[in-house]
Amino acid sequence: MADDNIIYIGKKETMSYVLAVTGQLNGDAGKVTIKARGRSISKAVDVAEITRNKVITTAVVDDIKIYTESLENEDGRKSNVSSIEIYLRKE
Amino acid sequence: MADDNIIYIGKKETMSYVLAVTGQLNGDAGKVTIKARGRSISKAVDVAEITRNKVITTAVVDDIKIYTESLENEDGRKSNVSSIEIYLRKE
Repeated sequence: MADDNIIYIGKKETMSYVLAVTGQLNGDAGKVTIKARGRSISKAVDVAEITRNKVITTAVVDDIKIYTESLENEDGRKSNVSSIEIYLRKE
Repeated sequence: MADDNIIYIGKKETMSYVLAVTGQLNGDAGKVTIKARGRSISKAVDVAEITRNKVITTAVVDDIKIYTESLENEDGRKSNVSSIEIYLRKE
């Protein structure tokens, strides 16, 4: 499944996501998409940078996309939140 | 000067940077680079997204780069910090 190659960045420690990303890059596909929203975007960039500089130095950034998602709150109001997708590939 | 087209994201309010980015895009060059480090990276993405979705809808993301900078602390120790550059252009 395509979703297997996506790592969503949330509230866990940065290194926990670095491990997950490393596992994906070392898998058959050899690639991974790191996704994050709002304040987690900074952590997503940290995860990508630490992975490719310290862990898998043959990993490269294939592409980076930014976009806006419209999320519905519990009370039905919508709010816009910035999002990022970082595509990493093992060379 | 090339530096005139760079907006550095810091501790001001998001909309303050949106105004600065909008000013650059409306200038002669018609393009701007948004730069941020560490936790300000999320705000940089917000600034780019708000500018191109709400203010200058003809603006497009030309490229996005992520990299790591090595900064020296006051006591001489070095620390690595993730950085982002978002290139916007008015079509």
